[in-house]
Amino acid sequence: MVIRDRIFNTITQVFKRHGAVTVDTPVFELRDILAGKYGEDSKLIYDLQDQGGEICSLRYDLTVPFARWLAMNPNIQTIKRYHIAKVYRRDQPAMTKGRMREFYQCDFDIAGVYDKMVPDAEIIRIVCEIFGEQGLGWSNDNGGGFTVKINHRGVLDGIFEVCGVPKEKIRSISSAVDKLDKSPWEEVRKEMIEEKGLTEEVADRIWEFVQRKGGAEVMQELRKDERVTSNDRLRQGLEEMDLLFAYLEAFGTLDRVQFNLSLARGLDYYTGVIFEVITEGSAPPPTSKGQKPPKQPRKDKASEFDEDRSNDPSVGVGSVAGGGRYDELVGMFSGKGQIPCVGISFGVDRIFSITRARMEADKSTPAVRSTEVDVYIMAFGGKGFTGLLKERMQVAKTLWDAGIKAEFAYKQKPKLPAQFKAAEQAGIPFAVILGEDEQVQGKVKVKEMGLDEGHPEKDGVMVDLANLVAEVKSRLSKKSANASVEAISNGVRELQAGQIKEGGGG
Amino acid sequence: MVIRDRIFNTITQVFKRHGAVTVDTPVFELRDILAGKYGEDSKLIYDLQDQGGEICSLRYDLTVPFARWLAMNPNIQTIKRYHIAKVYRRDQPAMTKGRMREFYQCDFDIAGVYDKMVPDAEIIRIVCEIFGEQGLGWSNDNGGGFTVKINHRGVLDGIFEVCGVPKEKIRSISSAVDKLDKSPWEEVRKEMIEEKGLTEEVADRIWEFVQRKGGAEVMQELRKDERVTSNDRLRQGLEEMDLLFAYLEAFGTLDRVQFNLSLARGLDYYTGVIFEVITEGSAPPPTSKGQKPPKQPRKDKASEFDEDRSNDPSVGVGSVAGGGRYDELVGMFSGKGQIPCVGISFGVDRIFSITRARMEADKSTPAVRSTEVDVYIMAFGGKGFTGLLKERMQVAKTLWDAGIKAEFAYKQKPKLPAQFKAAEQAGIPFAVILGEDEQVQGKVKVKEMGLDEGHPEKDGVMVDLANLVAEVKSRLSKKSANASVEAISNGVRELQAGQIKEGGGG
Repeated sequence: MVIRDRIFNTITQVFKRHGAVTVDTPVFELRDILAGKYGEDSKLIYDLQDQGGEICSLRYDLTVPFARWLAMNPNIQTIKRYHIAKVYRRDQPAMTKGRMREFYQCDFDIAGVYDKMVPDAEIIRIVCEIFGEQGLGWSNDNGGGFTVKINHRGVLDGIFEVCGVPKEKIRSISSAVDKLDKSPWEEVRKEMIEEKGLTEEVADRIWEFVQRKGGAEVMQELRKDERVTSNDRLRQGLEEMDLLFAYLEAFGTLDRVQFNLSLARGLDYYTGVIFEVITEGSAPPPTSKGQKPPKQPRKDKASEFDEDRSNDPSVGVGSVAGGGRYDELVGMFSGKGQIPCVGISFGVDRIFSITRARMEADKSTPAVRSTEVDVYIMAFGGKGFTGLLKERMQVAKTLWDAGIKAEFAYKQKPKLPAQFKAAEQAGIPFAVILGEDEQVQGKVKVKEMGLDEGHPEKDGVMVDLANLVAEVKSRLSKKSANASVEAISNGVRELQAGQIKEGGGG
Repeated sequence: MVIRDRIFNTITQVFKRHGAVTVDTPVFELRDILAGKYGEDSKLIYDLQDQGGEICSLRYDLTVPFARWLAMNPNIQTIKRYHIAKVYRRDQPAMTKGRMREFYQCDFDIAGVYDKMVPDAEIIRIVCEIFGEQGLGWSNDNGGGFTVKINHRGVLDGIFEVCGVPKEKIRSISSAVDKLDKSPWEEVRKEMIEEKGLTEEVADRIWEFVQRKGGAEVMQELRKDERVTSNDRLRQGLEEMDLLFAYLEAFGTLDRVQFNLSLARGLDYYTGVIFEVITEGSAPPPTSKGQKPPKQPRKDKASEFDEDRSNDPSVGVGSVAGGGRYDELVGMFSGKGQIPCVGISFGVDRIFSITRARMEADKSTPAVRSTEVDVYIMAFGGKGFTGLLKERMQVAKTLWDAGIKAEFAYKQKPKLPAQFKAAEQAGIPFAVILGEDEQVQGKVKVKEMGLDEGHPEKDGVMVDLANLVAEVKSRLSKKSANASVEAISNGVRELQAGQIKEGGGG
């Protein structure tokens, strides 16, 4: 929960930096609202028992409830909202004891009539802030950067048109193309021809297009093809992609994105740009037909399920986030005005398991502390020691009053080694130690935990009770400053080591 | 959501100051786990439809799932945990459209075998931090302090014993006593005699005891009564109350608590100290039998329901928080070892509605902003104005990179008045204004919003783009410092006004 909490905080901070507010939509929806929105995944929806009142189901994702909420609140025509909450899926009807199918999703959406591609670009900028140096720090240096794969439904549908796919087959062919990140072309081709009835020529024409990926040059190359420039949807889609890339350049995030013509996304309601975020280790390896992708070995417990939701279609199979523009979903609920939207879902469980795996792999990461307590208040004494419980409580009061995070043993007469052990196990950096003699003089000891034998302050320093808060605060701020300096000088040492190696020849 | 978010943040900060970690328990529980835990309120539990797999219900509160989680995790023998999450009740089977019976609760619990009353006292200290000056600021000065009513199940049951209540009637007589905060004694007495079969003498003996309330002197007075000192449960309960009051004194919170012998709490599983927090306006006025308490008039919309959950029995009817010690609940699920627990539930919806009402009443409270954005980036120009969209995006990138919260209009060519209006409506304190001429010189204007006509910086100041981040940061920190100074000097002025009044006589 501590790592998850940090991920939530990081993500929330970025959202707020962009002016988002949180909107809380209900866990229940009328069953009719959810019906027909998730294709064959609808069987995974949890229904509430009919105990009188409306027939309800539990939400399957956060997008449909948001669209429904917008439709119900016609006074809201523009909003940037985020929502971190649980969704519910009946993935494994035969569940093991206690493992229920509820998990977190985290959504960000921009709703409103705006100039083309501006909010779309901001969403991709937000993705880059969350995963990049300002957020979770997924850089290329520390074992896995991230890539935002982008495509456009208009471009994709236009390609299918110019390749000769019949109109009624476009969505099902699109689903087949979406499998290219986990299946080889031969299999997808076979599906297109044998299951979906395309001719070999049409299928091969599609392949010519969908293997393309890269930067803005992909747009230029496509335009050399006359079939492309003569198709309206394709031409318009490419114009929007031009705009998007120009805006992403202004946002300084071009190096993170990849125009990828094989990205199709499963859900039907997308109408424009679509995207998925992948990172090293997030994409399942390609498998041959009929085989399930091999399960990632997990260190904590053996599990037969997809615990980190790597197969979640609403984020993207093997992705850490996914989304796109859906301009027509709100209108499905309001029955009248449309509100164009673009949004993204972050797969918190995937992000969590990747973060944890990286932390475990990286020995230099400090152990994650379960609490944030800064001071452990202890007492010791000789024969007839009373335990100084009330005195420890008064010291705790003084520290809490000053906003300092503090704990003490819930025992009348705790033993000193037990108190040290408790502080050490919780990774608490400072001890305030009360002794019976010192108490009389109005003094306590402040001791930094974990100092080496022989350190001049190994045994702590005596402080007047009246100065305790100031002393603790100054030591806490010094400690956090030192931690920064240490991180920087470690970095410098690594840099120097690297330079010597390069210059001197290993 | 903004006010609610702040309440959550305040509460969470206090919990972390005391070393708590958050534990997330499932929304579903096996139906059997919830059965028989909530008395007649069990009919309010939401059941999931049987679609295969286990038979589940939605959680009714956060305490039972926590106890079940502890029972399932025998390696955890001590924990301070908090949990802010939704619970579900079928309060109104005939719901109005879209109003579902889900709402937030916020729980804090300390589990573990500890010396008596130490964690209990810390929970009451936490209550005082949350509602007091360090938290929500519910002081006696600003229209309503708060009081923590405390009682002890051992004391209460001992009283019933010495008054002559038969053992099997103790829980039902306890429920009757619990109504004394909203019903007059005559009615409760009638219920005890006519419905629950007590004699008049026994009922009147109970009344003699349960009207007592106050500080530590209540313990002393009770002890003058020989019936009290000769009853084991009573004697032990009073000893625990002595300890608790001594600890609360050390924690500096004695002035907030009231030993109240009529507090009984509805739920059966309490085994020791029990408490409820009330504030001005939170207790419903006493009513005569059969009448429902009058609904509080609500400003936002007419509602036939108890929207702010003032009747929530798990917090306490008319209370903002309630809890107590439950030493035997974990054992009901584990079947073997007990883990003693003490905890509290905060009624977030009640706290929210009281906070909002006070903010509305207090004209000096600044309007609540819906977003936290600090800078709105604008552009203006004359004929042939391009809108400088990419340039605004680059400025946004620069500010975001520096962690500054910033927005701009999602329009290629926005009009200047529309941009000012957007910034003003959102209460954004600063504008960064791009002009085509200034752009060429690498300059932008930084303008504080809302300055008076005639202020020397009314039109903003010109800044080099290279210095923009430093300039904005320094102005933001100056502004927040000024806000503090203003608050302090307002306080000083009020103090002085008070002194003059006192000294000079009206």
